[in-house]
Amino acid sequence: MSEAPLIVERDAYGLPGVLCITLNRPGAFNALSEALLDALQRALDEASESDARVVVIAGSGRAFCAGHDLKEMRAEPSLDYYRALFARCSQMMLTIQRMPQPVIARVHGIATAAGCQLVAMCDLAVAASDARFAASGVNYGLFCATPSVPLSRNVSRKAAFEMLVTGDFIDANTALERGLVNRVAEPDRLDDATRALAASICEKPRAAIAAGKGLFYRQLEAGIESAYQLAGETMACNMMDDAALEGTQAFIDKRTPNWRKP
Amino acid sequence: MSEAPLIVERDAYGLPGVLCITLNRPGAFNALSEALLDALQRALDEASESDARVVVIAGSGRAFCAGHDLKEMRAEPSLDYYRALFARCSQMMLTIQRMPQPVIARVHGIATAAGCQLVAMCDLAVAASDARFAASGVNYGLFCATPSVPLSRNVSRKAAFEMLVTGDFIDANTALERGLVNRVAEPDRLDDATRALAASICEKPRAAIAAGKGLFYRQLEAGIESAYQLAGETMACNMMDDAALEGTQAFIDKRTPNWRKP
Amino acid sequence: MSEAPLIVERDAYGLPGVLCITLNRPGAFNALSEALLDALQRALDEASESDARVVVIAGSGRAFCAGHDLKEMRAEPSLDYYRALFARCSQMMLTIQRMPQPVIARVHGIATAAGCQLVAMCDLAVAASDARFAASGVNYGLFCATPSVPLSRNVSRKAAFEMLVTGDFIDANTALERGLVNRVAEPDRLDDATRALAASICEKPRAAIAAGKGLFYRQLEAGIESAYQLAGETMACNMMDDAALEGTQAFIDKRTPNWRKP
Repeated sequence: MSEAPLIVERDAYGLPGVLCITLNRPGAFNALSEALLDALQRALDEASESDARVVVIAGSGRAFCAGHDLKEMRAEPSLDYYRALFARCSQMMLTIQRMPQPVIARVHGIATAAGCQLVAMCDLAVAASDARFAASGVNYGLFCATPSVPLSRNVSRKAAFEMLVTGDFIDANTALERGLVNRVAEPDRLDDATRALAASICEKPRAAIAAGKGLFYRQLEAGIESAYQLAGETMACNMMDDAALEGTQAFIDKRTPNWRKP
Repeated sequence: MSEAPLIVERDAYGLPGVLCITLNRPGAFNALSEALLDALQRALDEASESDARVVVIAGSGRAFCAGHDLKEMRAEPSLDYYRALFARCSQMMLTIQRMPQPVIARVHGIATAAGCQLVAMCDLAVAASDARFAASGVNYGLFCATPSVPLSRNVSRKAAFEMLVTGDFIDANTALERGLVNRVAEPDRLDDATRALAASICEKPRAAIAAGKGLFYRQLEAGIESAYQLAGETMACNMMDDAALEGTQAFIDKRTPNWRKP
Repeated sequence: MSEAPLIVERDAYGLPGVLCITLNRPGAFNALSEALLDALQRALDEASESDARVVVIAGSGRAFCAGHDLKEMRAEPSLDYYRALFARCSQMMLTIQRMPQPVIARVHGIATAAGCQLVAMCDLAVAASDARFAASGVNYGLFCATPSVPLSRNVSRKAAFEMLVTGDFIDANTALERGLVNRVAEPDRLDDATRALAASICEKPRAAIAAGKGLFYRQLEAGIESAYQLAGETMACNMMDDAALEGTQAFIDKRTPNWRKP
């Protein structure tokens, strides 16, 4: 029996509330086979319903993720099959944005094609300084159309277009400058940097983060006046939470909120 | 009788046409109390109708603005009250974008929560090199939902999301690199830098700037074809202005337009 | 008989498939006269229908392009004339985005007003290190409304707004950092850098690039869910191309695709 294509770890990095999902097909650079896509969809759905506060997506072995599994994808070509495959992958990607917890990509090695898309789709990303990113599909004749969706919503349009038509790699610092990742760390500090970001989020009240994440993406797609209406309503409801009432009172009293463990 | 929460100065920086609005609650880091919000709304409305060419928003004391006045906000919690409060604040923020004059934020010290939002909402921003910016509400359990609206329209989405869920400060140079401010100056040169930017705008014809500012934000929310239609119409009307006819003729004649004082 | 305002060169840079369109009014810094606008529209329309794989837009003489021809534009002012002129120019600009081939701006000297717009509108841009960019219309009283459309879709909104209301130049490295250009090269390496970018695109299958470019701009204007639907359909169809089937098989076989010349 083969090893599971996905490893799910609770209380990762020694932090209660951090759920780490590790792509586990190291021999295939964690390529997103159908089995892995399905396992990832299930893991994200379960995480959505769980008490996790932060989800980390990582990869085992030498790479974060090399995109779709081309061997499997090439086996029996049909338009219907490809439509269904990309719809399934897109569904998984959108789940990341729709779930209540912030999702952090922990990136090492390469993140190519749908692997680069996965980084772009996460709310946050921490990269090893030697990580590299490419929208590489065009190198084998397949324009990274679905990866272009979050990539062009992370980096400027000329930079995204260049990656898409050249298939060239960019390094971690370039990815940082352009907005594809939030932080870059030396490879042996990658876990520390990921942990620090996750820990910061774990300190915050769950309801505020969940409502805030949902609002963030909704308002991005609205005109600025509608965005303000959505945001005002979210913020008014948030302010009535026990956590916000305690947090603001603690701020006034110059003390730590009782929901924040010392 | 307490000091006015707002100071309005005409011909600021010795420049005719520059109106400086200074938040003046230094003991409260210029927190936006209801009285200050109302005074700011009135001052912006009056500026809109005035002959001012540029508006500068500054803060007195050690900070630019620390956001809402939490003490006042926490006093009598009710959903209706918070809805009305955020609607009022959003209205004031939108006035900045709707008014015909460019609005420059002159930022020193800290700009947090709605103070950071105010910077993001201004058309332009000049920051002291030791200024710091944070979407800090999440630290007391209140996700900066309304600040996320202009913040996510100024900086890349991962950078905005990180500020919103961590509440961490970014420094002035980071704010510059990410697009939250236009210029950074040594603290003792902050007024010079603000003055220089304001002076450059004062040299330009009022009608062209007003029509251009309105068009800029309208076209940003349109698809590119509609954006071009709006822009073409604005530009054709602008070209029929006396100032544009004189300005282009002066350009052809290699002389200074007669509307630009020597 | 005067020299043609446009030079069209096939197999430019010694690369089959690269079409170079050179603005050729060096005495007028390649200002976009009506004759040049018409010639450029025709050249782009012909390139769209041609077997070219990449189009380069360059300028002869000391500048890339100084925008509209103010002398011609100022001669007989009328609202209808200006409406028609800007509509015509906008049509040409939109053709760049609609055509199937990637279009690269090769920028040297200055790119001002509609010249800066041309750079922003191209899919990609390579600039000489001493090139400079400005939305300079406001200097003569004419807000760069149509240039603001692609400029504000290339760079952050505060940076775009600053260029539009000050008319100030930015240098090539600033343009690179802000996303207005993709690469900066020493002036004597500008052709090498342009050639390298064009060559990389020429290696890729034509159909994948054409479908990808169309999808890229369509999905940018859609909400993220619609964007994914458009992208999934594009990618499924692309995958059924002979070139993609061969390319992915070659990737699996660890060999060069037979469509990529060694």
